[in-house]
Amino acid sequence: MGSQGIFLSFEGIDGSGKSTQARRLADSLRARGHAVTLTREPGGSPGAEDIRRLVLTGDPDRWSPETEILLFTAARRDHLEKTIRPALSRGEVVITDRFADSTRMYQGLRAPALRDTVDRLHELMIGTEPDLTLLVDIDPAVGLARAQARAGDEMRFEDMGLATQAQMRAGFLDLAARTPRFAVIDGARDADAVAADILTTVLARIG
Amino acid sequence: MGSQGIFLSFEGIDGSGKSTQARRLADSLRARGHAVTLTREPGGSPGAEDIRRLVLTGDPDRWSPETEILLFTAARRDHLEKTIRPALSRGEVVITDRFADSTRMYQGLRAPALRDTVDRLHELMIGTEPDLTLLVDIDPAVGLARAQARAGDEMRFEDMGLATQAQMRAGFLDLAARTPRFAVIDGARDADAVAADILTTVLARIG
Repeated sequence: MGSQGIFLSFEGIDGSGKSTQARRLADSLRARGHAVTLTREPGGSPGAEDIRRLVLTGDPDRWSPETEILLFTAARRDHLEKTIRPALSRGEVVITDRFADSTRMYQGLRAPALRDTVDRLHELMIGTEPDLTLLVDIDPAVGLARAQARAGDEMRFEDMGLATQAQMRAGFLDLAARTPRFAVIDGARDADAVAADILTTVLARIG
Repeated sequence: MGSQGIFLSFEGIDGSGKSTQARRLADSLRARGHAVTLTREPGGSPGAEDIRRLVLTGDPDRWSPETEILLFTAARRDHLEKTIRPALSRGEVVITDRFADSTRMYQGLRAPALRDTVDRLHELMIGTEPDLTLLVDIDPAVGLARAQARAGDEMRFEDMGLATQAQMRAGFLDLAARTPRFAVIDGARDADAVAADILTTVLARIG
């Protein structure tokens, strides 16, 4: 870290408010004089955005879970090389809205037998984890209502229904409990309170 | 094999005549009553063709070797699932113009340190090898002249020059010497003689 920058990720189920909170954190850190790169997955670099489009358009069953994992990993590799690592080399704070944990959760739910494959593929081709992952945790009923309220053209993930979102939340909380780089943030409070909590957590790490 | 079909691949440097020979073999086997699926890489299924387009268009340095390997592996996985395995399940002879050995050679030359990564990624996400690989071997000077004579819009691979093609040839011959599924075919003879040699080799395997 230090002159090598700091790498932060936001994770959470749809409607958790993590994208809003990622933006607010970027604004707050910039206001304090930090250089910040705010990015997202899938996507985050021109090549990764092209891969994202390939994955997310067309028939939802167009790709098998294995092919989709490979495509997301290709996009992540490009994102890492073209956006994340250069910004970290410049000493910036990199904030990404989703990273590998999202793949672990979504693909793990879609095909539980593939969780191990996802981890091995990550180890082989990515290898990098965030310094700090902010899990914005929320009740799925609240999250789903929020997600539906802003329904766009990329409903693949949002389309999964309450039971699936509940499994996803449990999966994230389980991963967080086993993984020291996670900080679990209560996302049910109003956005200002959540943002203040996140900023405090991050400043404690940045120092 | 048997009712599970047989899986054949053609490999070789550019201009070796392998694409022509793959087509001729398909015709000969069909004339003998075999059901044949003739396919190619990169590509070979609608999804894989989309990935192929993404890899082969634009700036040649658009993708790092690692990202390119991931994209080719995603395309191969789709090709395997959508084209190769279904045809094998129907008991057909599947003939593919290039398969994983091409990735091993091309990426191995581009980034020698990645050869092991290519193999590990193949093992993790593909796992399947052809029953028989026909390496159409030719002097690079002859191969390059042939390739330049039919220069199309996908010159990425053909663009590598004589020294690189010589390295590629040596790499293929080395792999063939270590890998029992390979048959090395002298591609310098006229096309009829090469085709007859290949047909004999394949019929000996099909029985």
